[in-house]
Amino acid sequence: MKYIIQHKPLNYDGSQLQSLFAYKNFGLMGDSISIFRGSCRVEEQEMVDMEDVLAKDWIYSEDMLHFIVEHFDMDLEKTVIRQHLLIATIKEELEKLGVTNLIRSGDDLYREDKKLSVSISTLSPVSTLIHCGLNVLNVNTPIPTIGLADFHIYDVLGFGENVARHYCDEVLSMRHARCKVRGVL
Amino acid sequence: MKYIIQHKPLNYDGSQLQSLFAYKNFGLMGDSISIFRGSCRVEEQEMVDMEDVLAKDWIYSEDMLHFIVEHFDMDLEKTVIRQHLLIATIKEELEKLGVTNLIRSGDDLYREDKKLSVSISTLSPVSTLIHCGLNVLNVNTPIPTIGLADFHIYDVLGFGENVARHYCDEVLSMRHARCKVRGVL
Amino acid sequence: MKYIIQHKPLNYDGSQLQSLFAYKNFGLMGDSISIFRGSCRVEEQEMVDMEDVLAKDWIYSEDMLHFIVEHFDMDLEKTVIRQHLLIATIKEELEKLGVTNLIRSGDDLYREDKKLSVSISTLSPVSTLIHCGLNVLNVNTPIPTIGLADFHIYDVLGFGENVARHYCDEVLSMRHARCKVRGVL
Amino acid sequence: MKYIIQHKPLNYDGSQLQSLFAYKNFGLMGDSISIFRGSCRVEEQEMVDMEDVLAKDWIYSEDMLHFIVEHFDMDLEKTVIRQHLLIATIKEELEKLGVTNLIRSGDDLYREDKKLSVSISTLSPVSTLIHCGLNVLNVNTPIPTIGLADFHIYDVLGFGENVARHYCDEVLSMRHARCKVRGVL
Amino acid sequence: MKYIIQHKPLNYDGSQLQSLFAYKNFGLMGDSISIFRGSCRVEEQEMVDMEDVLAKDWIYSEDMLHFIVEHFDMDLEKTVIRQHLLIATIKEELEKLGVTNLIRSGDDLYREDKKLSVSISTLSPVSTLIHCGLNVLNVNTPIPTIGLADFHIYDVLGFGENVARHYCDEVLSMRHARCKVRGVL
Amino acid sequence: MKYIIQHKPLNYDGSQLQSLFAYKNFGLMGDSISIFRGSCRVEEQEMVDMEDVLAKDWIYSEDMLHFIVEHFDMDLEKTVIRQHLLIATIKEELEKLGVTNLIRSGDDLYREDKKLSVSISTLSPVSTLIHCGLNVLNVNTPIPTIGLADFHIYDVLGFGENVARHYCDEVLSMRHARCKVRGVL
Repeated sequence: MKYIIQHKPLNYDGSQLQSLFAYKNFGLMGDSISIFRGSCRVEEQEMVDMEDVLAKDWIYSEDMLHFIVEHFDMDLEKTVIRQHLLIATIKEELEKLGVTNLIRSGDDLYREDKKLSVSISTLSPVSTLIHCGLNVLNVNTPIPTIGLADFHIYDVLGFGENVARHYCDEVLSMRHARCKVRGVL
Repeated sequence: MKYIIQHKPLNYDGSQLQSLFAYKNFGLMGDSISIFRGSCRVEEQEMVDMEDVLAKDWIYSEDMLHFIVEHFDMDLEKTVIRQHLLIATIKEELEKLGVTNLIRSGDDLYREDKKLSVSISTLSPVSTLIHCGLNVLNVNTPIPTIGLADFHIYDVLGFGENVARHYCDEVLSMRHARCKVRGVL
Repeated sequence: MKYIIQHKPLNYDGSQLQSLFAYKNFGLMGDSISIFRGSCRVEEQEMVDMEDVLAKDWIYSEDMLHFIVEHFDMDLEKTVIRQHLLIATIKEELEKLGVTNLIRSGDDLYREDKKLSVSISTLSPVSTLIHCGLNVLNVNTPIPTIGLADFHIYDVLGFGENVARHYCDEVLSMRHARCKVRGVL
Repeated sequence: MKYIIQHKPLNYDGSQLQSLFAYKNFGLMGDSISIFRGSCRVEEQEMVDMEDVLAKDWIYSEDMLHFIVEHFDMDLEKTVIRQHLLIATIKEELEKLGVTNLIRSGDDLYREDKKLSVSISTLSPVSTLIHCGLNVLNVNTPIPTIGLADFHIYDVLGFGENVARHYCDEVLSMRHARCKVRGVL
Repeated sequence: MKYIIQHKPLNYDGSQLQSLFAYKNFGLMGDSISIFRGSCRVEEQEMVDMEDVLAKDWIYSEDMLHFIVEHFDMDLEKTVIRQHLLIATIKEELEKLGVTNLIRSGDDLYREDKKLSVSISTLSPVSTLIHCGLNVLNVNTPIPTIGLADFHIYDVLGFGENVARHYCDEVLSMRHARCKVRGVL
Repeated sequence: MKYIIQHKPLNYDGSQLQSLFAYKNFGLMGDSISIFRGSCRVEEQEMVDMEDVLAKDWIYSEDMLHFIVEHFDMDLEKTVIRQHLLIATIKEELEKLGVTNLIRSGDDLYREDKKLSVSISTLSPVSTLIHCGLNVLNVNTPIPTIGLADFHIYDVLGFGENVARHYCDEVLSMRHARCKVRGVL
């Protein structure tokens, strides 16, 4: 499991949530996280969460830190569990920077009633995928939001790298944990 | 996914980490969490973590809050991911009670260099299993520890129930999340 | 596992055999059966059974009781087994109404040489799916058929609900059966 | 998938429900059904259904037709579905012999309140297994039962062969059904 | 597992690497190998190996022996292992004809620096697939190649049949091998 | 995937074919190959191949090069395919040393009618396992054999290391191959 920081701005429009995104764009093969920064605007035909489509919850943010995670196995429920663990990890990395009073509600992060994140998991023909976006700015969003700038985090990609490093290490340690126990009756 | 609180004290000696524990003892069928309180002493022949066996890290605590989780699928790595999410959940439930400065390191919880938890995942012939124990008292442990009593949590089983309810709800919501997305290319 | 009765007529043209049909149309999330009534006409480009395509066995019926079943796991053979059990269940529900002399041949139901049913299983990117249609009327079909009307079943959707309730109960009981046994050597 | 008829009487005591039963005893390799006839008496320590153990439902019959099915895959829920289909198949084979008024309730067969069958599915380290026993005689059973003799079926093993042939054919046809469809969206 | 020899020439352009190729074209149901002969020219939009697309390694050969293998399970890594075994098998069948000094490098066959084969594995919505092509002639290829004609193999389809028969037998024997062992601790 | 050479002689008696062998003995975590040298004598109660047990084919060799491979996934058929690929790899490594006229027959290696190898795959509660032994000496074996000494290979463990390195590299490259293709229809 490896990560890549894309320093050039890249706007997320949903088409980045596709198989082999990291390989085709950055040459990164295998399980990966790609980190980049840009706006977030997903039109209806690119949305994968039918609950949002039914509720007409369009996603928009002017400036976000984006994570695209790809795991080359095909169990979507397993990747949803990984997604929730990624969100918990983001909260914990923010705490290391002194950000308090964050609440994780499933795959969402809040401070009070202000939403920090959007996130979805899905599967492609060859892999499972996670997108997570964290607001940098809280302006012009369709619902009340809070952003990394509100937490005085200005090295946005550096923060993304901390999260990615932590997540990659944890994925590796969980593979190890699977390989050191005997079974029970 | 259901949970059961066993109010009668029950000491954990490793033999509780077996398939159908909740069904055979409490009549609870299917994915489950059992919560109980008692000492923790696991002899070498009951230990499932070969890393601890090789390191001769015997586990001992006088008074612990115990969680036994059983999932009736056979992917141990998936249950290890659930285990890490359970630990993150315990940390978050403690935060709701005002406990701060906790650090999750994989499947361990610490405050500074004092360890709050022990945890392991394994598989049985019919299921995968998690044990997690949280110290209530910090006395007579082989390494520096901290306990729920240090956080002024005296309704120990009530705290366990909060964790269990939160975990059961999250497992359900993750199953739903798997059933509301379209695939991507 | 839940079911929904759609009381408004709905003609089946093959496009209903798609992922998230129950969720997108009726808001039903997770494993589900949708029951509705309407004609059945599947054009070649919508057919999923290549055996029928090769044999040019086009499907047509003026009035059918339709079942669309969706299971959110990805083992097609497992869903084919479920499909055969569903057909056995339909036969058994008909017997409760006094209908005798039905023969199940795999995923087909016959009385003598007259066919009552059409059925197919397939997979989508996120789930496995079953369609089963039972003739209500036996007129104008390309092969000899028999219909629910021949059995004097006039509450067609009510009969569909009996089948759906029985199938949902059995799916639940089979999940339980998986969670109450120890392994053997 | 093959079947073997063991003509020599063999009493079932639970130990036959083990991996490689057909291979070690009859040289039959791969997915298989073994058919034999004998009494049925399972002591507590051989029981695999913890529900029966908890309810102290000991199994006893003087004379039964036994089926041991082994499938070399590891999905117990899938084999439970196969088990229910096997029970439906037994009912259908009885109907071909003119036996009417049978009710299948999950993995049990009844006529009125008299039980014809016992059945369980479990898994071994290398396979999944089904045992099904049909009473031949209805005498001395702990609950009200009915037997094949009540249906005037005297070629008991011949009847078993009909069931086995039908089940093997259906397993093969279901594998084929999995290999002739295109996916849908 | 069955094979089919298509004696009529058929040029490979990538579109043959699709699900149900053997069934739709030759009526062969289930796991299969199709063998045919023709040129090989895969345009960019038909290529499935993104490594080749990124490297702009277009595939071209005037005359090749082609194998299309389809396995109706969904584990791509497993089919990649089968692919490497198929390549080892081709090498071994060539050795039986006295061809020496072949080197297998993963899924490629070489003599010295001359390439004999192209090969790829992928998955479809219902199966996993392998294409392997062996040069018959070594002319006009974009890289140095060697062909079956250089080994004086003129019954090209007959050689293909030897490989297919050997592969089918081995697949069957590996299924048997899975069904004759007990587990260990 | 890592390998370990155990330079101290170690006789194989079947008990080495157990889960976590490399971890418990050599501290090697995760997928692994352990290489060692010693006699081979497996008593009936340690044999895992029921075909050999039924045929009373006891295994004995005075001096063998042993490979114990462990893969932490649970698909035994997949590991049988890996086993055959390992045997092909051993043959290819021997060819690099100038050894010719070897025949691979499934998971066995022969020169003429003399057997070089024994091999078996099985599964443990937490992993799948392969044992392969290559005769060093050909004396006192129950069937005609040939050994590495007949090929003038005297650095037996060095040869084992070549095989292990080649196998580990190939396992890695096959994981990569799974992560660089798009799906097809």
